Amino acid sequence: MYASEHLRLPRTGIGTDVHAYAAPDDPAPLWLAGLFWGGERGLSGHSDGDVVAHAACDALFSAAGIGDLGVHFGTDRPEYAGASGRRLLAAAAGIVRGAGFEIGSVAVQLIGNRPVFGPRRREAEDALSDAAQAPVSVSATTTDGLGLTGRGEGVAAIATAVVVRSDRAGRGPHG
Amino acid sequence: MYASEHLRLPRTGIGTDVHAYAAPDDPAPLWLAGLFWGGERGLSGHSDGDVVAHAACDALFSAAGIGDLGVHFGTDRPEYAGASGRRLLAAAAGIVRGAGFEIGSVAVQLIGNRPVFGPRRREAEDALSDAAQAPVSVSATTTDGLGLTGRGEGVAAIATAVVVRSDRAGRGPHG
Amino acid sequence: MYASEHLRLPRTGIGTDVHAYAAPDDPAPLWLAGLFWGGERGLSGHSDGDVVAHAACDALFSAAGIGDLGVHFGTDRPEYAGASGRRLLAAAAGIVRGAGFEIGSVAVQLIGNRPVFGPRRREAEDALSDAAQAPVSVSATTTDGLGLTGRGEGVAAIATAVVVRSDRAGRGPHG
Repeated sequence: MYASEHLRLPRTGIGTDVHAYAAPDDPAPLWLAGLFWGGERGLSGHSDGDVVAHAACDALFSAAGIGDLGVHFGTDRPEYAGASGRRLLAAAAGIVRGAGFEIGSVAVQLIGNRPVFGPRRREAEDALSDAAQAPVSVSATTTDGLGLTGRGEGVAAIATAVVVRSDRAGRGPHG
Repeated sequence: MYASEHLRLPRTGIGTDVHAYAAPDDPAPLWLAGLFWGGERGLSGHSDGDVVAHAACDALFSAAGIGDLGVHFGTDRPEYAGASGRRLLAAAAGIVRGAGFEIGSVAVQLIGNRPVFGPRRREAEDALSDAAQAPVSVSATTTDGLGLTGRGEGVAAIATAVVVRSDRAGRGPHG
Repeated sequence: MYASEHLRLPRTGIGTDVHAYAAPDDPAPLWLAGLFWGGERGLSGHSDGDVVAHAACDALFSAAGIGDLGVHFGTDRPEYAGASGRRLLAAAAGIVRGAGFEIGSVAVQLIGNRPVFGPRRREAEDALSDAAQAPVSVSATTTDGLGLTGRGEGVAAIATAVVVRSDRAGRGPHG
């Protein structure tokens, strides 16, 4: 155990995720930031492709130092196959608390041309904060037509989280 | 209010921004990290394109959970049209404090081939820290010739910030 | 000195790095996250190209507000020419502590198609945490075939760190 862990210093985490849009004739629905987006092109892949929720989960696991989505929700955990972003984030927050951490906050930025995010920002923040039982902020930006998101190939999300070891778990001999 | 808010745990935020370089015959000046860069190619767009300052603002808003650049400085706030990066960052820091938070720090990394940033790093940090009235660190890197910045299509910036609920606002009934 | 520094608020940092893969006939070995990866294609460049360790160093310097890799390990510091990722991270953590900060944690995400990272995650975390003498978490993701990492042109890493001014250095007149 390092000195910082006795001192209950905060720990930070990082997570990113990228998904390609589905083919134009693919009827996949779009789920993003815990919300359903009717009339929008979906994302490819066997999960629901909710890059916002997935990046948030990875940032939480990263802050706690306990692995990533693949470790906790991978193919050897079939109960999570096809799980929604909200359900995964709720589970991730529970796993992080179970490992002995309080969650300060999670912050995610959605990067992409579509959907237009601003009008539903608060709804998304409410959905994801309720899932995590901690403050989750979600914002959005574009990349001036450049890169994979600017060319409209897919959407990306980038997230950070901060956690602090909780009293019970963190009180070591010098705590 | 979540438990973490009673505990005055730190909150973290994330922000990124990308702008394309202006056309070679466009006389747009380059403003970056709150500084004017004479003799350098400017950035496209109707704002000054200061990706460093814009990413810093978004990271602060993200940490406080109060939206993003579009919410606070969008087209319905004409007083900010064409505002400089320093002015936007000063306003963003004031808005975040007004929402009840102390700012721990803001950190930004500029990603791009030009301008050569190192010689003016301290000058940029002084300008932006003075604007925010909080520590703002700025560093720079390149991407080994790859991606949108490596190909010289534009510049990117990525920022994080940490805030803590201030005493006055944070003391709830159990605070 | 800003109010936040008297209050010993946490400070956050950000760092990213990108390296191209070496040419197929280049026998460069692959070092990543402080580990040697036998049988994997190496990265180009005159350093060992350990993007995970380099991003971690930059995040630490960024959190402390004391510059970046170029400032501390650049060409005017020949003793670091060709230094391993572990050695650079150990030096960076020492420089940050010497500047008056405790390290809360460092978190890095490796973004790329190769190598397959999961099976060696704990080994990498142990190596880098031991180098930094602080918790270092390392996770990995891919980008669904998009962008510079998805096309297999190179690997990227993104890191955050959190530091707090240590008692000795931080106790100002009101500390």
